[in-house]
Amino acid sequence: MRFKRTHGCGMLTKAHIGQEVHLSGWVNKRRDLGGLIFIDLRDRSGIVQIVFDPQHQEAFATAEKVRSEYVLAVKGRVVARDEATINRKLPTGEIEVYAEEVEVINPAKTPPFTLEDKLDVDEAVRLKYRYLDLRRPAMQRVFKLRHQAAKAIRNFLDEHGFLEIETPMLTKSTPEGARDYLVPSRVHPGEFFALPQSPQIFKQLLMVAGFERYYQIVRCFRDEDLRADRQPEFTQVDIETSFMSAQDLQTLMEEMIARLFKETIGVEVALPFERLTYEEAISRFGSDKPDLRFGLELKDVSETVKNSSFKVFSQTVKNGGQVKGINAKGCAAFSRKKIDELTEYVGRYGAKGLAWFALKEGEMRGPIAKFFTPEELEGIKQVLEAEEGDLLLFVADQKQVVAEALGALRLKLGKELGLINKEEYKFCWVTDFPLVEYDEEQGRYVALHHPFTMPREEDLELFDTNPEAMRAQAYDMVLNGYEIGGGSMRIYQREVQEKMFALLGFSAEEAKEKFGFLMEAFEYGTPPHGGIAFGFDRIVMLLAGVSNLRETIAFPKTASASCLMTGAPSAVDEKQLEELALAVTTKLKV
Amino acid sequence: MRFKRTHGCGMLTKAHIGQEVHLSGWVNKRRDLGGLIFIDLRDRSGIVQIVFDPQHQEAFATAEKVRSEYVLAVKGRVVARDEATINRKLPTGEIEVYAEEVEVINPAKTPPFTLEDKLDVDEAVRLKYRYLDLRRPAMQRVFKLRHQAAKAIRNFLDEHGFLEIETPMLTKSTPEGARDYLVPSRVHPGEFFALPQSPQIFKQLLMVAGFERYYQIVRCFRDEDLRADRQPEFTQVDIETSFMSAQDLQTLMEEMIARLFKETIGVEVALPFERLTYEEAISRFGSDKPDLRFGLELKDVSETVKNSSFKVFSQTVKNGGQVKGINAKGCAAFSRKKIDELTEYVGRYGAKGLAWFALKEGEMRGPIAKFFTPEELEGIKQVLEAEEGDLLLFVADQKQVVAEALGALRLKLGKELGLINKEEYKFCWVTDFPLVEYDEEQGRYVALHHPFTMPREEDLELFDTNPEAMRAQAYDMVLNGYEIGGGSMRIYQREVQEKMFALLGFSAEEAKEKFGFLMEAFEYGTPPHGGIAFGFDRIVMLLAGVSNLRETIAFPKTASASCLMTGAPSAVDEKQLEELALAVTTKLKV
Repeated sequence: MRFKRTHGCGMLTKAHIGQEVHLSGWVNKRRDLGGLIFIDLRDRSGIVQIVFDPQHQEAFATAEKVRSEYVLAVKGRVVARDEATINRKLPTGEIEVYAEEVEVINPAKTPPFTLEDKLDVDEAVRLKYRYLDLRRPAMQRVFKLRHQAAKAIRNFLDEHGFLEIETPMLTKSTPEGARDYLVPSRVHPGEFFALPQSPQIFKQLLMVAGFERYYQIVRCFRDEDLRADRQPEFTQVDIETSFMSAQDLQTLMEEMIARLFKETIGVEVALPFERLTYEEAISRFGSDKPDLRFGLELKDVSETVKNSSFKVFSQTVKNGGQVKGINAKGCAAFSRKKIDELTEYVGRYGAKGLAWFALKEGEMRGPIAKFFTPEELEGIKQVLEAEEGDLLLFVADQKQVVAEALGALRLKLGKELGLINKEEYKFCWVTDFPLVEYDEEQGRYVALHHPFTMPREEDLELFDTNPEAMRAQAYDMVLNGYEIGGGSMRIYQREVQEKMFALLGFSAEEAKEKFGFLMEAFEYGTPPHGGIAFGFDRIVMLLAGVSNLRETIAFPKTASASCLMTGAPSAVDEKQLEELALAVTTKLKV
Repeated sequence: MRFKRTHGCGMLTKAHIGQEVHLSGWVNKRRDLGGLIFIDLRDRSGIVQIVFDPQHQEAFATAEKVRSEYVLAVKGRVVARDEATINRKLPTGEIEVYAEEVEVINPAKTPPFTLEDKLDVDEAVRLKYRYLDLRRPAMQRVFKLRHQAAKAIRNFLDEHGFLEIETPMLTKSTPEGARDYLVPSRVHPGEFFALPQSPQIFKQLLMVAGFERYYQIVRCFRDEDLRADRQPEFTQVDIETSFMSAQDLQTLMEEMIARLFKETIGVEVALPFERLTYEEAISRFGSDKPDLRFGLELKDVSETVKNSSFKVFSQTVKNGGQVKGINAKGCAAFSRKKIDELTEYVGRYGAKGLAWFALKEGEMRGPIAKFFTPEELEGIKQVLEAEEGDLLLFVADQKQVVAEALGALRLKLGKELGLINKEEYKFCWVTDFPLVEYDEEQGRYVALHHPFTMPREEDLELFDTNPEAMRAQAYDMVLNGYEIGGGSMRIYQREVQEKMFALLGFSAEEAKEKFGFLMEAFEYGTPPHGGIAFGFDRIVMLLAGVSNLRETIAFPKTASASCLMTGAPSAVDEKQLEELALAVTTKLKV
């Protein structure tokens, strides 16, 4: 018999009653009951109940031996279930299959964990036995969704004239951004390829080449110290266009994302997206990736308190800092302990303290209230739109600390106070990022986006006078507090690119050595161009409603960048290293 | 004005006459004629003629300065051309655009070669300035075709329930096949990832995981000494299925390829494909990837000549070799010099000589004719179906030499005699490859396909007695003499896999260290599975009718695995090596 297959297990319905079917799949569960054996047989399409009775002696004898996860081939007949035994929870629950023949295609040892969706097992065990973990319906659903997401994006881009063009994986090490993964060359001993952090330069060269609209769903690599939501290799939806304005590109990308959400999870996304400048996002939400599903906005009371006798406030303002607060509606009853916890929390983001007022019985109460005049207290109330029962929380510090501390506090309170609707998808664009920022450690300017980002035209004159004030033609797409995509208009003139490299501290020689080919390309008729890259793993994570990028990657790496299933990375033969003219030096860490 | 764009240059027709249009693109050519300036403006959609007259003084003055490959934005009005100046060769040849305004968006230096389809320039120059080379219409066409090919394949596979699932690029070094590219780990000093030669093991584990139908269009890597038609990184259409027979999978893949050819180049492929066993392909065509567009089949005359007095023939047969020939129809008049050239040619493939007869005036003529009886000569004529005017060419040697020498001669003559119809697409399957062959150099058996290939069930008993006689459940798809895909049914039982590893000379420890996770996976309910991988670059090459894989890859590497545009591979900072705990030893080669 072997594995001839006429139907998927999950596809059988009342319409098949009376038919002979050949099925193959895994034993999801076996039950012995009333002299019969019931096996739930599972394949990718779903589950169906198979019944074995002792009359079919050989099949029954085989069925007695099988256990969970055995692979079976079954020949049988579809019959209606008794009204009493219909299972409304199962799509195939109105029928069952009476087995006539069965064959064990492959037996199975007992899995190290049960293959159910609600799983209470260490992630390390799941990763080691990933091939079993992936059998769980919840995981199967994620990868089906991932497939559909890629398809929806490809279809949209194809319809809009984008060509999928592949760029090299073995390429040149570049000095900006994160650490490169290196690949030693055997033919050129002592030389190395680098795995791409993104196809940035190649996609720009494809614009020089006149392709006008390019895309690729492409693997990228960053050798970074890993955080919970990073992987050494990740997948990017990479897009570049010529002769389009930033606004036109953004509009097209909104449509693409709306189509994606509609076709995968049936969510209608409101267009156009809200737009915030970087300044506004930082000012109102303390973050350049604001979660717009709830309020709790940051309010600036610097003007109101700049002359107050509470020195922490007035001195901070005098020293160029600011005092901002958020209004935790209805939280005036928070305990001292709770407020201490919040103070400790903002401390992690550099805030030296958390000042507060509780609005009770019409009065602004709290340990620092006495330092403020009634007018000042009234002013604070007005700025924060405070009402009876509200708790007002303040940080006084330099702008960046205020933003980070209050931005984090806002998110924490948003969650704790249940202000976030998990069914909601709130998109926005954040635009006009600073072009560069000064890196104290490196003692030089670094590009906020990357060194190929075009400044706003009206800011070009600031290159020599006030580079930190230059705004980039850069934009991020943000969803529910996650940056899901980021892009920019690119520099397309050699002189501007040279100025940019000089600003970032490259000598003319360095710039030429690393990027000479790009700057030369700019001289042969380069169109104005710009693009964007989306984090595909993260988008799938948000679509699937899972909490971790690893859940969206079939064979992910751990936080220490290793694969628990294959054991990669691993030692290699001495001979392989010799061929590469390499030697391993001291073991730096273990 | 900048680059506002209302139409693509190549999209304008008589229907647009009278309309104001905004165009942007590259100067393909400029001509000054009769006081007017004509510019052919090119963008991805095509070319249109722009006319500048001195009445629009500013635009005219700008147009006087522009040169080839300048990037322009043009505002103008579409007008009909005079009947006399209509250009039937150009899709937009019935109209032209009268320019009112023009802006130089970016100037261009003179390109190092003219951007025309018929190009006589060293490939190294094209690769260095790849971004210019890619502007040529012939190259644009290849990448549009490549995009369409990927799309056609994806759509077909999606419709047939295949899920696109991504597998890791940073994975484990495996000992079989070609050399791996290694990637040093920074977190685990002294340990390495390997870039995948194919996702073989991962796709099998996806079958263990129950996905049943997987595909991926995926980059793979081989650090081999490069030949004309190899690249260190290449793209594979990678497919795996569970619960399907080899025959069912092959039928499905034929349909996929037929759909691909239909949707990209409009060719109707005849289904089903012809099928040849490996034995038959070698026997009839001297090749396991036969070009079936022409005859010239190899004929075996061993039986006929085994007792002849021509010792070269009779001794060869006695020593277990064979004598085979091909009939070069109508070539009896080939000169002695030509025959010497053919003899030299088969010599490259190990043949010690090329025996021949010319059938002239009813007689078998040639230097060796005198050694044969009339019956033997008549027998040879019959086996080769020789007629007046034919030239019969023979090689006598061991089977492999005969196949390689005559297989190559067949192809050479097929080309020279004009027997090949270049418009024809002749597909076939070659099946039943040997499972292993003995490698004299390594002193052990090696897998012909790979170590995961299933032997035919009826051959399993030969593992211990006669492994070389085992046939694999392996199959190649061949088109016009190129292997475009290859696959197999896989081993899915631990015991069989262990036998296979042992046969290939792995100790139990080695097998466990390298593939323990796979063999363990086989014990948890592994379905019967098999798959195939297509060489996507090669398929595009054949679809596009180009002669070299490099023409199908946007940024290819040279034969010494370097990129002439970026200069990769290159030296890296000492600091980067230190972080990886690596040192470069002697420079082995330069």
